[in-house]
Amino acid sequence: MDVQELTKLIDDLRSGAVSSEDAFATLSNWSFADLGFARVDHHRSFRQGMPEAIYAPGKSPAQCAAIASELLDNGTGPVLLTRANAEQAEVALESCPGGTIYPDETVRAEHHVIYWRASEPRDERVVIVTAGTADLPVAGECAATLRAFGFGPVVLADCGVAGVHRLLANYDELAGADVIVVAAGMEGALASVVGGLVAAPVVAIPTSVGYGAALEGVTALLAMHASCAHGVTVVGIDNGYGAACAVARILR
Amino acid sequence: MDVQELTKLIDDLRSGAVSSEDAFATLSNWSFADLGFARVDHHRSFRQGMPEAIYAPGKSPAQCAAIASELLDNGTGPVLLTRANAEQAEVALESCPGGTIYPDETVRAEHHVIYWRASEPRDERVVIVTAGTADLPVAGECAATLRAFGFGPVVLADCGVAGVHRLLANYDELAGADVIVVAAGMEGALASVVGGLVAAPVVAIPTSVGYGAALEGVTALLAMHASCAHGVTVVGIDNGYGAACAVARILR
Amino acid sequence: MDVQELTKLIDDLRSGAVSSEDAFATLSNWSFADLGFARVDHHRSFRQGMPEAIYAPGKSPAQCAAIASELLDNGTGPVLLTRANAEQAEVALESCPGGTIYPDETVRAEHHVIYWRASEPRDERVVIVTAGTADLPVAGECAATLRAFGFGPVVLADCGVAGVHRLLANYDELAGADVIVVAAGMEGALASVVGGLVAAPVVAIPTSVGYGAALEGVTALLAMHASCAHGVTVVGIDNGYGAACAVARILR
Amino acid sequence: MDVQELTKLIDDLRSGAVSSEDAFATLSNWSFADLGFARVDHHRSFRQGMPEAIYAPGKSPAQCAAIASELLDNGTGPVLLTRANAEQAEVALESCPGGTIYPDETVRAEHHVIYWRASEPRDERVVIVTAGTADLPVAGECAATLRAFGFGPVVLADCGVAGVHRLLANYDELAGADVIVVAAGMEGALASVVGGLVAAPVVAIPTSVGYGAALEGVTALLAMHASCAHGVTVVGIDNGYGAACAVARILR
Amino acid sequence: MDVQELTKLIDDLRSGAVSSEDAFATLSNWSFADLGFARVDHHRSFRQGMPEAIYAPGKSPAQCAAIASELLDNGTGPVLLTRANAEQAEVALESCPGGTIYPDETVRAEHHVIYWRASEPRDERVVIVTAGTADLPVAGECAATLRAFGFGPVVLADCGVAGVHRLLANYDELAGADVIVVAAGMEGALASVVGGLVAAPVVAIPTSVGYGAALEGVTALLAMHASCAHGVTVVGIDNGYGAACAVARILR
Amino acid sequence: MDVQELTKLIDDLRSGAVSSEDAFATLSNWSFADLGFARVDHHRSFRQGMPEAIYAPGKSPAQCAAIASELLDNGTGPVLLTRANAEQAEVALESCPGGTIYPDETVRAEHHVIYWRASEPRDERVVIVTAGTADLPVAGECAATLRAFGFGPVVLADCGVAGVHRLLANYDELAGADVIVVAAGMEGALASVVGGLVAAPVVAIPTSVGYGAALEGVTALLAMHASCAHGVTVVGIDNGYGAACAVARILR
Amino acid sequence: MDVQELTKLIDDLRSGAVSSEDAFATLSNWSFADLGFARVDHHRSFRQGMPEAIYAPGKSPAQCAAIASELLDNGTGPVLLTRANAEQAEVALESCPGGTIYPDETVRAEHHVIYWRASEPRDERVVIVTAGTADLPVAGECAATLRAFGFGPVVLADCGVAGVHRLLANYDELAGADVIVVAAGMEGALASVVGGLVAAPVVAIPTSVGYGAALEGVTALLAMHASCAHGVTVVGIDNGYGAACAVARILR
Amino acid sequence: MDVQELTKLIDDLRSGAVSSEDAFATLSNWSFADLGFARVDHHRSFRQGMPEAIYAPGKSPAQCAAIASELLDNGTGPVLLTRANAEQAEVALESCPGGTIYPDETVRAEHHVIYWRASEPRDERVVIVTAGTADLPVAGECAATLRAFGFGPVVLADCGVAGVHRLLANYDELAGADVIVVAAGMEGALASVVGGLVAAPVVAIPTSVGYGAALEGVTALLAMHASCAHGVTVVGIDNGYGAACAVARILR
Repeated sequence: MDVQELTKLIDDLRSGAVSSEDAFATLSNWSFADLGFARVDHHRSFRQGMPEAIYAPGKSPAQCAAIASELLDNGTGPVLLTRANAEQAEVALESCPGGTIYPDETVRAEHHVIYWRASEPRDERVVIVTAGTADLPVAGECAATLRAFGFGPVVLADCGVAGVHRLLANYDELAGADVIVVAAGMEGALASVVGGLVAAPVVAIPTSVGYGAALEGVTALLAMHASCAHGVTVVGIDNGYGAACAVARILR
Repeated sequence: MDVQELTKLIDDLRSGAVSSEDAFATLSNWSFADLGFARVDHHRSFRQGMPEAIYAPGKSPAQCAAIASELLDNGTGPVLLTRANAEQAEVALESCPGGTIYPDETVRAEHHVIYWRASEPRDERVVIVTAGTADLPVAGECAATLRAFGFGPVVLADCGVAGVHRLLANYDELAGADVIVVAAGMEGALASVVGGLVAAPVVAIPTSVGYGAALEGVTALLAMHASCAHGVTVVGIDNGYGAACAVARILR
Repeated sequence: MDVQELTKLIDDLRSGAVSSEDAFATLSNWSFADLGFARVDHHRSFRQGMPEAIYAPGKSPAQCAAIASELLDNGTGPVLLTRANAEQAEVALESCPGGTIYPDETVRAEHHVIYWRASEPRDERVVIVTAGTADLPVAGECAATLRAFGFGPVVLADCGVAGVHRLLANYDELAGADVIVVAAGMEGALASVVGGLVAAPVVAIPTSVGYGAALEGVTALLAMHASCAHGVTVVGIDNGYGAACAVARILR
Repeated sequence: MDVQELTKLIDDLRSGAVSSEDAFATLSNWSFADLGFARVDHHRSFRQGMPEAIYAPGKSPAQCAAIASELLDNGTGPVLLTRANAEQAEVALESCPGGTIYPDETVRAEHHVIYWRASEPRDERVVIVTAGTADLPVAGECAATLRAFGFGPVVLADCGVAGVHRLLANYDELAGADVIVVAAGMEGALASVVGGLVAAPVVAIPTSVGYGAALEGVTALLAMHASCAHGVTVVGIDNGYGAACAVARILR
Repeated sequence: MDVQELTKLIDDLRSGAVSSEDAFATLSNWSFADLGFARVDHHRSFRQGMPEAIYAPGKSPAQCAAIASELLDNGTGPVLLTRANAEQAEVALESCPGGTIYPDETVRAEHHVIYWRASEPRDERVVIVTAGTADLPVAGECAATLRAFGFGPVVLADCGVAGVHRLLANYDELAGADVIVVAAGMEGALASVVGGLVAAPVVAIPTSVGYGAALEGVTALLAMHASCAHGVTVVGIDNGYGAACAVARILR
Repeated sequence: MDVQELTKLIDDLRSGAVSSEDAFATLSNWSFADLGFARVDHHRSFRQGMPEAIYAPGKSPAQCAAIASELLDNGTGPVLLTRANAEQAEVALESCPGGTIYPDETVRAEHHVIYWRASEPRDERVVIVTAGTADLPVAGECAATLRAFGFGPVVLADCGVAGVHRLLANYDELAGADVIVVAAGMEGALASVVGGLVAAPVVAIPTSVGYGAALEGVTALLAMHASCAHGVTVVGIDNGYGAACAVARILR
Repeated sequence: MDVQELTKLIDDLRSGAVSSEDAFATLSNWSFADLGFARVDHHRSFRQGMPEAIYAPGKSPAQCAAIASELLDNGTGPVLLTRANAEQAEVALESCPGGTIYPDETVRAEHHVIYWRASEPRDERVVIVTAGTADLPVAGECAATLRAFGFGPVVLADCGVAGVHRLLANYDELAGADVIVVAAGMEGALASVVGGLVAAPVVAIPTSVGYGAALEGVTALLAMHASCAHGVTVVGIDNGYGAACAVARILR
Repeated sequence: MDVQELTKLIDDLRSGAVSSEDAFATLSNWSFADLGFARVDHHRSFRQGMPEAIYAPGKSPAQCAAIASELLDNGTGPVLLTRANAEQAEVALESCPGGTIYPDETVRAEHHVIYWRASEPRDERVVIVTAGTADLPVAGECAATLRAFGFGPVVLADCGVAGVHRLLANYDELAGADVIVVAAGMEGALASVVGGLVAAPVVAIPTSVGYGAALEGVTALLAMHASCAHGVTVVGIDNGYGAACAVARILR
């Protein structure tokens, strides 16, 4: 659905060429497809500038595949399946060939991102920094989503503040970035430090990495919100996909 | 301090025109002024694109005024004093005339923002939406900070989801915004709804408004993070200043 | 046990036809059956208008079956077994044939609702709305319980506020409902939006669906309580059965 | 605004008698009045069956009075001001004479409910039960709101489970009620016991009454949600107004 | 070690018959046996009137058995192994024959209590009441421990407040009890109701039974502490053993 | 009301000398007095062995005085007013002369306990131990309540585990006690240590004393529940009155 | 009391020169003075190497003064009164002249530290770093306590990670320190950064400074514990006194 | 990298023998090795006095082994792999022979510590005390780390305060220790008691041992922070490695 079609509908409604009941029905039908167990939102890319993603947990493999098919057949732009387990990923890729999966089959991972029909390449510079190696799966979900949107993010792994020189060694890349994503668990201090170094937007992802007092990411989430580096914004725990969407909004 | 000065220093260091000890001392002196009780960071605008703000709580009125003076005398660009109580505001404005105070003296407020030497006017469109009238003080802190940075934000008050048509009535302003800030307490659902309507970056501020189960803003903070509208980012509870800084980063 | 029997007992007690000790004993015996590990409350339907349900967790399959037998043999009206795992469900259905199980055996589910001897069909209109596909198991527990009570609920899946038009497409069904149940995880905002749209009673179920900051449903529970849509009431996390009982109370 | 007006507008839109732009403008204007600091929702009674209430905290006395005036001048039905402190109450009653205030001036209370233009008397039976004397202010907010809506609630004070016979002494009133509201702090057990006694809808209000482990009402809120008496629903902590709205929905 | 031995030691110390170094060594040796991984406290029964119990979690099966052997060989009175898994139980019973295990091998349980050398039978009346069938494992741990101490507790299962008549049917047993233990999960209201009915000491055990809002027993723990029935005391979540020890202290 | 009167009523009911309606009315009237804002429970001492206490917070001074009068005029045994502020205490003592107040007027205290008509002196030995001087107000509430019940408790102040010898210096008093109450804030370790020293029942009161991490008593409450000294029981935070009632139950 | 006296007592006990009863009494009397409301621990400096401090909250001014007198008259070494309000400080200084108060009377502070009879000057280098100016009161409590112990701590204020060069400017002082104390609120990241820079022991104090999400210091406490800089240790929220004691233990 | 090399680099930079670009590159390369997924910090031992440890969770076995190889090949001093599961341990030991593993293969453990190239033996006395046998795995992680650093720690197991004489039996070892580590779960009271006994630094590790109210170690963590024994410091939950690093800082 595009702006021309919408404009014509409004004109037809005013001229009487279409009844208000019919116009309402048309709009309702256009905007989503009702699969019974899901209402696939074809209107989202028009409204939000990015397509609906399929959040896999709680859906059967067949449901994941059916929604992906619907979005590929009747929509445009990239299609994403996030947090898929091995079985959901397999069924979806079989039903809808041509998808890119992260991480690939050489890695035993709990969650996978799959995307089809990636956007045209874009040249804004997005940098993803992680505090430790254990934050890489979250950074990877973010990077895969950004690739679906056409970005070519750089990932700088293991730059935690316990050895801040490892971060400073890539100061040029940080200073030249259009947006920086910081994925950090434990006490999440990396977000404050990066926020204190650069003028670009910083999107922080608290991760569930760390010992007991890390409280499954709640400590990092609170710490990032209490950060003394002004203007750092935060997304949900382990939410690499959400951070990528925030980047897409900033750079639209 | 500007880039030319820094470049010259590095060259002098390399050529031996300045010793490494002296270069270190020069850099240290340049970057901040040590008032004993505070280290005023003159380097921040160079690094982060926005000046250091003075966070008033826990400082004496005289300390607030001294830091403001230091920033006004030896720095450039806007100077901000946030969360000032009546006495801190009065002393600071007396010491450093020419400041703009929000809210002004006709209102009995707990906190005030004062700024001096606002930036040149900018024409990006920033919209601040509040869920209720009680969220206006937080929205006001955000708006005053944005004005110090040169923006002319529009505030749309009282658009909570209990009557979502009040929000839709300003759909054009939302759709045309470069960045939207949402200030909402209670369950914070307005952030999800706004995020679902537009493609622009959405910065959500959870506020401490609401009955007992609102838990002084913690409920809204958690709810905004759990938001199903992808790509919404969040700052700390009642942190209108932080949201304004996030906007400045996005629109730098 | 019905009102006539009770009235007669009181009269007999007054006339001396029965001693107070015997009357006490009769009342005690009537009201429940003591199976040793459980006291089956035959009096509940008389008192609360709905029969006791068997909450399976923590009971052995044999205990589940024994209580169901007792309720079917010595009571009237529907009998329910909730949150049964596969083994509990199998043993109960074998012992007490004729039960209806949800979800049926084609689905691998963690929990099942089984009911026997459903009430006569009723024609009040109950609508269950879910925010996402992942909320369907909770909505299903609610729907199965309502069917046991004779209702024919309509389930509208995947209407979350990230695409609020999907909800509005069914506005007629919402506006015509006698009671609406909203099952939503993450930030639970759907309850506020539905509560803002209609005048009917809204019973909200927070679900444990969502990323880390959803805190296993606690975020949605708090958010629904802090809701700015007045008069929305809330039941426990994932408690589809409880929501159905609330509907039955409202429509008794 | 009533249904006839709305129907006519839709017909005019279809016939071309009114342009879609004008129809949109008319609808927007009708539905709320923008006072700058507040958007008064005149549409709410049409949509939800109850008028918008003014939540006083965070508003100036003048703002409270202005919104009340707007609702009284341009709306119909009852108007409510909740949680008003002494000064807000005084200014509002002076600006808008004829209001009823609870508690009245003989009592030093922290919060007041004021209502104007109460609905016609209704004869459904609503019973409000409190666990202790200290829960009476919350019960009073609920009762005053119900009176604004035309109900004549009965308040049974101090029936806590530590002496359950005090509750049973009013069994007839409980058994005959159309809806029961239970206001209880501490461990909130009264909601379970009442829910176990009657078949009517039970709306539970956790209150912030109690020693340290009552955690300002959080303990009662959690306990009521974990209640073993099925079908009890819960509103927010100390939210007497919300409970009254829930009753109004159930008995509309 | 008994009082006579201790008295003699003190006399010998004073008379010089034993040096203070030797006295210290004797006392240290007497009071516990150091197995390297554990310090078995033979002195506990002398001091606290009940022997040390072996808390199985975190110990290897061999360690459990070794401590039990030490206590059986070099101590007197009952010996207890609590929270043992199947393997720990098997190894301990093999090493130390003659133990009584609860629940016995016909039940698949997560935890077991084993005791050896139970005390002489005592005739105080201890009643354990449970809110539901799912609380029986906790009640069972309590009952088994009491049996090791010589008591013959009565267990009244499934008396929750949703059907309070089931509790009242055993009023005589409650009224005649010397101590009552209440095991209840969910909202834990049974402790308040029992505390309101009787004058005997009531020891409440919050259990981890219940839906999401039960928060693994934290809700019941808080609710029992906020109880309006004065003089009810509480032990830790699921701590049937601790409740039995509290009973033993009260009835020593 | 005593046992003879109750027995006679039951006989009259059986013989027809009194109708069941009248018997019900008599029982209802006997068991409490309805003052409108409170239901004074005259039946409590019959049932629980201790009279109803008046919890002052949330009641007006006049309400406190009226309930005390009702209990003094129409009941027997001690009457207690707890947590009274200065004004409540003054009005109650003026209305009902002869009360004993703790702490007396020479001390500026936030809360007061007042009691009238103390029980006959009893000679069981109750010892109250506090961890610090700051725990004395809570210990004092407990001691005053015990004095109302006829006990003559010994208070041992400031025996915290940071200097455990201060506790051991009173070992004889501890070892000879019939019940020990431990009032401790901060980390509450004193309860564990006392529980490890003696065989008597130990009732622990967590107090809200301590720095930030003491979390207003929640830390001590949790720590006492996690105590490794088996059989220690716990009452609510700062609940000296509740601990005294627990002692009364144990020593009835 | 010193080691010689203790040795002699043990010898006398063995030789019979003193009875065990007398030895026990002597030891008890020596180790503390019982003022009724407090047990002043004269033994502490012998045992822990630092004297008992008087924690003012919850004590009357007279009690504070009496304990200070007792410690000054019958003990040796420094005497400390912590967290004293203005009245407690005034009475204590009047009763016991010669004390040093921090902060002095020119500052309106909530809490004061007073010390008498400071230890001999010591030359270990202790550095206290604060994240912001608002952390200075906590740093001040720590510094005053250290001065009482004879240390001459250096305070580096306002070195938060938002401008990490302010910290690096004092790298030499950090690198040369024997122990470093870090006082930081908000997200507490400064502890991680300092811990990553130096090899000396780092004692971190979380402070209650910051916006809503700082949760009164709980966020900083959790974040410091989750710190990725290994070997950093933490004391309680705002506990400057505790940090000073930790330093004294490390440098004894 | 040592101090001489660093000094020479600075001299060369000043003399022009090396350009500032080259100096920067040299420093960057020296300080860490970038393996792609990890930045191995060779500079850490120079800066912090202890080498980087490899935190295994979230890393593949191959990644663990690769980082260990890098540290062994290009660094000096001990190398540690912590929290390794069986597979990570096996692969790492195969790749890098000569490591010492704790616990060894005779024990089925969840986590292992492995170290290579232990430091020279040191003779400071470190004592690790545990409250129970179940705390031994945490104490073991601490002890193994200390052994890698050259210490020979003594472990005193099972000294919990429920039988404080078991602790006092080793008073000499405690009194003679240079540093004491206390590992305790449940209520963590052992830290307070040990802190009250000795003058040495006490590092407390809260462990996740205990029943429900122990809240996975959060209760012990809070309790240790609220400890009344001044100067006790705390590390994160179950963080034996962190405690060992704190000891190494204190005794460097």
